[in-house]
Amino acid sequence: MVHFRDADISKKSVIKVARKSPDSFINAIGPLIVVAQCLGIMPVLGVLMRNRNAVKFKWIAFRTIYSVLVLSCGLVELCLFLYRMKILGVTLHGVEGITFYGITVMGQLCFFLLATRWPKFVRCWDKVESVFLTRPYRTRERRLERSVRSLYLFWIILAFIEYNLAQCAAINGISRALEICPSTKITALEIFYRSQRPHVFMWIKYRRWMIPFLLLINMSLTFCWTYLDLFIMVTGISMAYRFKQISDRIHRMKGMTIPDSFWIEIRSHYLMMNELVLYVDKRLSMLILLSCASNLYFICLQLYNSFKSFHNDLLSAFYFWFSLLFIMSRAICALLCAASIHDSTKTPLKTIRNVSTKHWSTELSRFAYSITKDTIALTGRRFFYLTKSLVLAMAGTVVTYELVVMDQVDEKVEATNNNNSTHPCNWTIHN
Amino acid sequence: MVHFRDADISKKSVIKVARKSPDSFINAIGPLIVVAQCLGIMPVLGVLMRNRNAVKFKWIAFRTIYSVLVLSCGLVELCLFLYRMKILGVTLHGVEGITFYGITVMGQLCFFLLATRWPKFVRCWDKVESVFLTRPYRTRERRLERSVRSLYLFWIILAFIEYNLAQCAAINGISRALEICPSTKITALEIFYRSQRPHVFMWIKYRRWMIPFLLLINMSLTFCWTYLDLFIMVTGISMAYRFKQISDRIHRMKGMTIPDSFWIEIRSHYLMMNELVLYVDKRLSMLILLSCASNLYFICLQLYNSFKSFHNDLLSAFYFWFSLLFIMSRAICALLCAASIHDSTKTPLKTIRNVSTKHWSTELSRFAYSITKDTIALTGRRFFYLTKSLVLAMAGTVVTYELVVMDQVDEKVEATNNNNSTHPCNWTIHN
Amino acid sequence: MVHFRDADISKKSVIKVARKSPDSFINAIGPLIVVAQCLGIMPVLGVLMRNRNAVKFKWIAFRTIYSVLVLSCGLVELCLFLYRMKILGVTLHGVEGITFYGITVMGQLCFFLLATRWPKFVRCWDKVESVFLTRPYRTRERRLERSVRSLYLFWIILAFIEYNLAQCAAINGISRALEICPSTKITALEIFYRSQRPHVFMWIKYRRWMIPFLLLINMSLTFCWTYLDLFIMVTGISMAYRFKQISDRIHRMKGMTIPDSFWIEIRSHYLMMNELVLYVDKRLSMLILLSCASNLYFICLQLYNSFKSFHNDLLSAFYFWFSLLFIMSRAICALLCAASIHDSTKTPLKTIRNVSTKHWSTELSRFAYSITKDTIALTGRRFFYLTKSLVLAMAGTVVTYELVVMDQVDEKVEATNNNNSTHPCNWTIHN
Amino acid sequence: MVHFRDADISKKSVIKVARKSPDSFINAIGPLIVVAQCLGIMPVLGVLMRNRNAVKFKWIAFRTIYSVLVLSCGLVELCLFLYRMKILGVTLHGVEGITFYGITVMGQLCFFLLATRWPKFVRCWDKVESVFLTRPYRTRERRLERSVRSLYLFWIILAFIEYNLAQCAAINGISRALEICPSTKITALEIFYRSQRPHVFMWIKYRRWMIPFLLLINMSLTFCWTYLDLFIMVTGISMAYRFKQISDRIHRMKGMTIPDSFWIEIRSHYLMMNELVLYVDKRLSMLILLSCASNLYFICLQLYNSFKSFHNDLLSAFYFWFSLLFIMSRAICALLCAASIHDSTKTPLKTIRNVSTKHWSTELSRFAYSITKDTIALTGRRFFYLTKSLVLAMAGTVVTYELVVMDQVDEKVEATNNNNSTHPCNWTIHN
Repeated sequence: MVHFRDADISKKSVIKVARKSPDSFINAIGPLIVVAQCLGIMPVLGVLMRNRNAVKFKWIAFRTIYSVLVLSCGLVELCLFLYRMKILGVTLHGVEGITFYGITVMGQLCFFLLATRWPKFVRCWDKVESVFLTRPYRTRERRLERSVRSLYLFWIILAFIEYNLAQCAAINGISRALEICPSTKITALEIFYRSQRPHVFMWIKYRRWMIPFLLLINMSLTFCWTYLDLFIMVTGISMAYRFKQISDRIHRMKGMTIPDSFWIEIRSHYLMMNELVLYVDKRLSMLILLSCASNLYFICLQLYNSFKSFHNDLLSAFYFWFSLLFIMSRAICALLCAASIHDSTKTPLKTIRNVSTKHWSTELSRFAYSITKDTIALTGRRFFYLTKSLVLAMAGTVVTYELVVMDQVDEKVEATNNNNSTHPCNWTIHN
Repeated sequence: MVHFRDADISKKSVIKVARKSPDSFINAIGPLIVVAQCLGIMPVLGVLMRNRNAVKFKWIAFRTIYSVLVLSCGLVELCLFLYRMKILGVTLHGVEGITFYGITVMGQLCFFLLATRWPKFVRCWDKVESVFLTRPYRTRERRLERSVRSLYLFWIILAFIEYNLAQCAAINGISRALEICPSTKITALEIFYRSQRPHVFMWIKYRRWMIPFLLLINMSLTFCWTYLDLFIMVTGISMAYRFKQISDRIHRMKGMTIPDSFWIEIRSHYLMMNELVLYVDKRLSMLILLSCASNLYFICLQLYNSFKSFHNDLLSAFYFWFSLLFIMSRAICALLCAASIHDSTKTPLKTIRNVSTKHWSTELSRFAYSITKDTIALTGRRFFYLTKSLVLAMAGTVVTYELVVMDQVDEKVEATNNNNSTHPCNWTIHN
Repeated sequence: MVHFRDADISKKSVIKVARKSPDSFINAIGPLIVVAQCLGIMPVLGVLMRNRNAVKFKWIAFRTIYSVLVLSCGLVELCLFLYRMKILGVTLHGVEGITFYGITVMGQLCFFLLATRWPKFVRCWDKVESVFLTRPYRTRERRLERSVRSLYLFWIILAFIEYNLAQCAAINGISRALEICPSTKITALEIFYRSQRPHVFMWIKYRRWMIPFLLLINMSLTFCWTYLDLFIMVTGISMAYRFKQISDRIHRMKGMTIPDSFWIEIRSHYLMMNELVLYVDKRLSMLILLSCASNLYFICLQLYNSFKSFHNDLLSAFYFWFSLLFIMSRAICALLCAASIHDSTKTPLKTIRNVSTKHWSTELSRFAYSITKDTIALTGRRFFYLTKSLVLAMAGTVVTYELVVMDQVDEKVEATNNNNSTHPCNWTIHN
Repeated sequence: MVHFRDADISKKSVIKVARKSPDSFINAIGPLIVVAQCLGIMPVLGVLMRNRNAVKFKWIAFRTIYSVLVLSCGLVELCLFLYRMKILGVTLHGVEGITFYGITVMGQLCFFLLATRWPKFVRCWDKVESVFLTRPYRTRERRLERSVRSLYLFWIILAFIEYNLAQCAAINGISRALEICPSTKITALEIFYRSQRPHVFMWIKYRRWMIPFLLLINMSLTFCWTYLDLFIMVTGISMAYRFKQISDRIHRMKGMTIPDSFWIEIRSHYLMMNELVLYVDKRLSMLILLSCASNLYFICLQLYNSFKSFHNDLLSAFYFWFSLLFIMSRAICALLCAASIHDSTKTPLKTIRNVSTKHWSTELSRFAYSITKDTIALTGRRFFYLTKSLVLAMAGTVVTYELVVMDQVDEKVEATNNNNSTHPCNWTIHN
């Protein structure tokens, strides 16, 4: 019976695994949560510790209070914005603002709720995952930890660049415009904040020491959006990795005589993963729905803007296209990562089809049937499945939308050009 | 054989069930039918009695005659409206009116036809349901009766508020407009009825004692629309509840050694429910088609109106948005309740997948196959299934429609503003 | 073994069948083909004879030559119309004409090609059908022959009414317009033909004796369109009838102990029907594609016309709406009849599901699998299946199309009003 | 056991096969690759040799260097075009040019990458195919080689005609326009090249000896587009041919007693073909995506142009419609050829369904299940499958697009008419 015991695992890789910390999802995502916590998202304790019992959510903890503060500031800003719009009337610019604050505050709320359930979430995931960290399963060429970390590092850096570009482009535009204004004491920075957050400075006077606070809240809200997608990506590739481990193990058995006990074990692991996907989906489907809807909305809006916008300087033009590409590729990457779960659940089928009928059994037949029929994937609250065909459907929606609105662009371009001219000089005068 | 006899049902719950009336669909829906009968819908006798043989439909009964009268008044109003439109020409306002009368009269007709078949319907449902009220099946945490009743109570109250808001907003608008008119004897109430039902008062003179009649017919027609959706909701969650009972019972057997006889019994119950769904679907599919079509049409129309409408006073603005939200959430709730049937038919699969192959049998394999393959759901005359993905498809249709018509809004806004001004003063003058 | 021998067939029905001609598709469709042959469609010999060997296609036969003549006249008209359009430029009216002649000539060609293969077609169908005319299968409550014949009689009468209404409306309009013209010798009939077929009377002089010929060709072409749909309807319900016979026979066995030999026989009959559907689909898919495309095109066009058209007199208004409803209901009826095949192939499943697992066998399992999986339906050259959901998809397409073109209506209405005024007086002047 | 040994293959066909070269895909496609190599596409060595080991890719070989040169020229042209557009601003004409160069250069790159992997590709394909060239499989009525070769010959000739028509139409137009210009030395040919490739002649002076080079690069790029579709067609029908051979072989066994060993062999061949499709799909899916996207884009664009364009002379009008029809039929043909794979994988099912249950076995059941469930088809990077329904979906997309943009045509026609008039006389003046 030796021939099916997955004996061909080299010792070297076993030792390597032992020395290092286990290649688990929770370890891989740890640093990402820490980064998020700096901006007041996901306030859980003990995310970097080896001991899983240290992972806790406490209401009386610095990071929880910090989180609540950031969240309430976001809520206050949303309310102020709504109030300001009620006074000044509905404008396209106002709707954009509302959407931004609405989505990000909802995102932060989602993550806060997730944080309260995180300890249970971690234990569930760990329990299922522990099977895949031991002997019969071999780590694939690339450790999960490494791919996950390099993935989110890449996107965090991009998000950081995008955020700073936005600030630079805006301040740069103001500075250049200020040069032609009559000389005043007012700085570009002050104008920037007062024009960017008029709903705040309607009520309080601008003070230089407020900048860090404003910056923090804004960064927290902006990063929350990116974090939604990042979380989906990381979850997606982590789960796909486990399914790939299963099909790798099956693939190594190719051509051997395999007893039923092997298939019983494999199928039980497959079902465990299936249940994990269902469990995670239940917890995350609100996040997924929010992420898909906001990405779809924002891409449509920015593409529409791209038809009519002309930019005053090179920096703002560059920023516009960089930002658009950034959001589009982030959204596509998140969808593809999530879709990779579904793809990887189907791969064992290839090897199973080649098993000779002599060794065919009810167990195998049930396994094959399960693989063929079950749609194992993250969903948007069961309304749609995150599979590859969703990407195509979304792309089609975006294209259709752009075609429909395209003929409304020409007429409105001239109108908007005149309206938007809140020239920085206006601000200096009011001072 | 004790180990599979579902022995773990606590005595307490059994006793509770015995004391109370059975937790059946017919008992749960009873009060809702009584409410409807007050407005002349569903004229069946004996809906609240325990004895099922008392449920009858008689042509010579007060409530039947009452129903026929209301229905014919509705028909007459529809004809008068059509005749008036022929004279005055087709207007958007006219089309809205025709649609309202058309849908509600058709709805009342549907319910009348359903009432004639109700006794048979009740017996069918009761026969199938009786299985689920006895021992091996346990009542879920919440009794069906309670959830059904709280659901429809909630919606009836909302519908009542919505109806009264509509009346108040209209009369309030007229009263305020009357203040600036030259003083006349005519009351706001009279103007209200004469402007709301010009097709009636073209022929007869307004008298104060007519108000209750007009109010009754209007309320009956308006409530009929809400009742369409309510009926679908109640049917949906009642049937989903039974399927959930089946999967609960299976779930409790998890990990035990289960003999084939258990599966034979479960499968036969599942098939019975399947046949009940088919039977009910045949009876209700006309209702469902009408409800889906009218909701889709009305949501599209009102969203289109929301783009162009401005409201004279706060009350009418509040009413407009309240009404729109009310209809949208009612429609979504009805669809989700109906879709819950389909979702709950799939849940047994989860436990069955985990049955070890040692205990696998042809019976189980047939059961699993049945669950995977059969689409058990209410349908719109078999043209579409009421599942969760339908909600998404409908939402997509609404969004597409709004996008397409959006660019026609601007041009027509000005035109309609001038046309709609049937100022109440005009009515006072004619007096 | 007596208990499964379908013994419960009453003698009366057996005797009745023996006396009458067999209740076959070929007998049922016979008169319809004869009607068609009067207008030069489907030139096959011996369609009404009992002896199937009499069904022949001969090139040298009166009806074949007659058919070829009508077809070539149609072709000539199409060419003349094309030539005329080349001279006068592309107009909406011209495109409509081209489409009419194009579709009908193609339809006639399809039927001519079908006629050449008809003898083989008949023999195939007869061979399969013979099984269903003998003992174990019972005729359903209504003989196939009767439902088929009443169906096509109904549609032929409607088509006849529609055709005559068109002629009356046109001539009536001309007559009324003539009254105000200066008195001339020219008759309304002459103007009618010269204005309806300007592409013909560009070349030859109008003579009264030409009317029958023109009428014949026009009727042949117009009826060909209706005949396309009629043929699909008749084929659809004939095949659905056989599948229903199968499920009736299975249904009568409900609750009995059924030996495998019964299922072997039933399955072989089911497969035979399946192959017949495939065979027929191959022969008719060109017809189906043509019918679907032309109906979809024409309904879209006429609905579009309905937005902008105003009619001079009541008759032409009545004709317009009658014609639109006629075409829409004809198209829907054809689709539903064809879709009934697919629906009826699924009905045996209901009884099979209830067979107890004790009597379950591989034969039954294969049968059930076949029913669940195989999509047995007529197709449009395998691009789409004629099922119920297609009706919904088509309706959606029509609605979308109307929404998209609706905003182009307003602007063009005025333009077309002026262009179309080829007043009959112009014709009298040229005389 | 003789009765299942496929003994009924006539000796004649066996001998014929032996004499000729094997009827393999690689032999069939050989000449097509040679034609492509003349234009610098697919630089592999030994495509026509019988010895498969001669098929090699070498970096230091004349055809590789030639290919690289053509590719880099294409890239340079693309860059020059982009640079020119940056200076002159974005125009519709500019976008068309960019798209042309972008697609064709990407196509050439794809083929270059494919060439580097071609030797491995050939060996894989040959290994799988060798099974189908020997005894039990019979060549179908028509050799694969012949149908493939006649197919691509047909399309190459059409592409050649289309290319020359384009050149003639352009030069003819210029010549006619030149006649009315003041006489200059400048030739029509010079104007042609300078107006067609302004991005090149912005930098260098026009010399007569440059024509061959320009012509070669342009032909290579243009043919690359056609070659994309041709490659897909040829791959499609070659693989469909093998699946048809399998179902032919099964079909010949109809009614015989077939031992399991036969089905084991057949299924293993079917799985081999399945894996070949997966392998080929992985290699070609980039090509397929590029081909589908570019065809869809170009057909939409040209149909849009067809609404507004009027042509100065008959030749250019003829060219326009010929070109449009050419591209549409080429695209449809490519899709249908690729879709034929999927269709032909389903055909064995027909015979298998008729196997009596007495001879049914697990092997057969697995085979039948495999055929029913697996979607074996070429894909566009797994986003969509190339099946028949895709053709319908694409046609729907094109029609929707045309409807949406149609109402934008009228307004812009006049504007473009004035802009496009870069009259040849302008060129003569600058000289």
